[in-house]
Amino acid sequence: MSAAEVNHLGQLGQGQPPEAAAGSAAEPLRTPLEQPLVFTLRVPATSANLGPGYDSMGLALELRDEIEVEARPRKNPAQPAVDVVVVGEGAADLPTDASHLVVAVVEKILAAKGYSLPDLSVRATNVIPHSRGLGSSAAAIVTAVLTADQLLRASAEGIGLSDDEKLQIGSRIEGHPDNYVPALRGGVGISWESSPEGDGARRFRTAALEPHPELTAIVAIPGFVQSTEAARGLLPPTVSHTAAARNSARAALLVHALTQDPHLLLEATEDSLHQEYRRPAFPAAMALVDSLRAAGFPAMISGAGPAVLTLVTTERAAAVSQHIEAWGRQRDTADTFRPVNLLLARSGATVELSP
Amino acid sequence: MSAAEVNHLGQLGQGQPPEAAAGSAAEPLRTPLEQPLVFTLRVPATSANLGPGYDSMGLALELRDEIEVEARPRKNPAQPAVDVVVVGEGAADLPTDASHLVVAVVEKILAAKGYSLPDLSVRATNVIPHSRGLGSSAAAIVTAVLTADQLLRASAEGIGLSDDEKLQIGSRIEGHPDNYVPALRGGVGISWESSPEGDGARRFRTAALEPHPELTAIVAIPGFVQSTEAARGLLPPTVSHTAAARNSARAALLVHALTQDPHLLLEATEDSLHQEYRRPAFPAAMALVDSLRAAGFPAMISGAGPAVLTLVTTERAAAVSQHIEAWGRQRDTADTFRPVNLLLARSGATVELSP
Repeated sequence: MSAAEVNHLGQLGQGQPPEAAAGSAAEPLRTPLEQPLVFTLRVPATSANLGPGYDSMGLALELRDEIEVEARPRKNPAQPAVDVVVVGEGAADLPTDASHLVVAVVEKILAAKGYSLPDLSVRATNVIPHSRGLGSSAAAIVTAVLTADQLLRASAEGIGLSDDEKLQIGSRIEGHPDNYVPALRGGVGISWESSPEGDGARRFRTAALEPHPELTAIVAIPGFVQSTEAARGLLPPTVSHTAAARNSARAALLVHALTQDPHLLLEATEDSLHQEYRRPAFPAAMALVDSLRAAGFPAMISGAGPAVLTLVTTERAAAVSQHIEAWGRQRDTADTFRPVNLLLARSGATVELSP
Repeated sequence: MSAAEVNHLGQLGQGQPPEAAAGSAAEPLRTPLEQPLVFTLRVPATSANLGPGYDSMGLALELRDEIEVEARPRKNPAQPAVDVVVVGEGAADLPTDASHLVVAVVEKILAAKGYSLPDLSVRATNVIPHSRGLGSSAAAIVTAVLTADQLLRASAEGIGLSDDEKLQIGSRIEGHPDNYVPALRGGVGISWESSPEGDGARRFRTAALEPHPELTAIVAIPGFVQSTEAARGLLPPTVSHTAAARNSARAALLVHALTQDPHLLLEATEDSLHQEYRRPAFPAAMALVDSLRAAGFPAMISGAGPAVLTLVTTERAAAVSQHIEAWGRQRDTADTFRPVNLLLARSGATVELSP
């Protein structure tokens, strides 16, 4: 997410421009806290663009970033004291002050509600790999939205974000709800945009599916990274009507297969809209997808890649991992993939308040 | 279905050409019956192209053609005695001899299995309106396939058609399985073609959904007819990638809405692939769809039109019928629509054997 996108945040929630929502300069922001507040968030990894569910279907995985937040009334009313400690993924690259993505988004959401950022200590233990197509950015946005929600609940007014605000705000920051929604709510999400309303604002909508109880995920995590934007640029402006109809049928089938009949997943994950077009962006990942599918395992690119997601019933999980390892041994390149068996996360992000 | 399509039938079942399957001219066809066989088929109407489920999703309706079949060993071994009586829909137009669609298809299927047509008396009481997009042609093909199945079961070998043969044969005759599958099996069907196998033959596949128990259908049956081919010609060769992705998301949502959450049906039936393109073919039907949808009722064109299908929970059914009637009274044209509330047919075609 770019700084421009963060600034776009003010248009969220009720569709008000940031100035209007944040109050005029003449009306200073209120402090949300009178006493310290400490809580821990656990936010799952996610996999989106599930087969034919390009830009619409995603699921949550039991691999969670853990973020401890300590918020205190400002010592210096003119300026918040912010420190961010990142352990694990991204520790070397992420800023540790108020320019950190999570803190910047929290500040924007609070401002839109008329509140200032309190002093904040954030300690993130990140395990979701970055830039692999596993939703690390969406997890950061969920972290920010739920942190803002906790601070607003702790304010004098005591009114947190509504469920719809959480959905709209996070989806707009991320640009789409595919990863954000399952990271927030767990399970399998179908997301779509409703037809524009009078205000012209995008409205995101979502439905939650209960995945089949025997389903599990094997994620092949690559040792290399992928830019979402680079992959997105490879998609064609048009597709044949036949391909569109075929993909729609498979998307319908995917819902049935994920919830009722996992044995149909190999056919249900055949896609006509994104994976083949993006092959040049992640040839090794597609080679792994091809190899797994030829062996009968329903594999697909996770998000914009290059991680590879395979969904099977639990008794086949070990065979998938072995296939990925055997495939890797036969290759003489640095494009390595490490298989990890992850449960589907049936609950989304959790908030644990410290007493 | 054209005569050419009926002749294509020989390529069905096991993918054998008709000559090979039927035996050479040197090996005459056997007679399937040693004694009379009497049975009654009840085959439901169907609605296909459900919203975003163009060419893939269809459902069965509790409006059934009833066909009594009496088969007897041939009196004249050189030629079968066939008489067909049609009561109701199509009575004036349909042939009453061996050139009747049902009889022609039965003969082809039997020939492919090495059997000749016995003497047949068929009495069809047809209630499914013709050329409205309610699956009357698919119902006729189901009738033929199940009649052939009964005759094969009554033969000395006693081997009827397998479930897969029933699926492949009927779908190929109809050209697609969207109506045929729910007419055969009931409920809501998702159909698709599997990737071509070595023999190059089309292989149809299907999954059955259990519709939500509170769902019911209101069909607005027009007083005028529509050619499937004319409507099909209006579809564009390509669509935008955005439309394809949007339609796929709605198709996924439709499965969830039909089975779990009917309140999402209005959004779930938004389609980007067929209805708007075909508006010139059935402007009155689309005007009714528009009017129903603007009132919050999830209406869509049934099949290739011009019937209009609305799916709601039972408590809203009367309001839909009233809306259709009120809409009709406001119009000063001959394009009339008659609302009929039909239950979803949870079972497909039934066969009742007479003792």
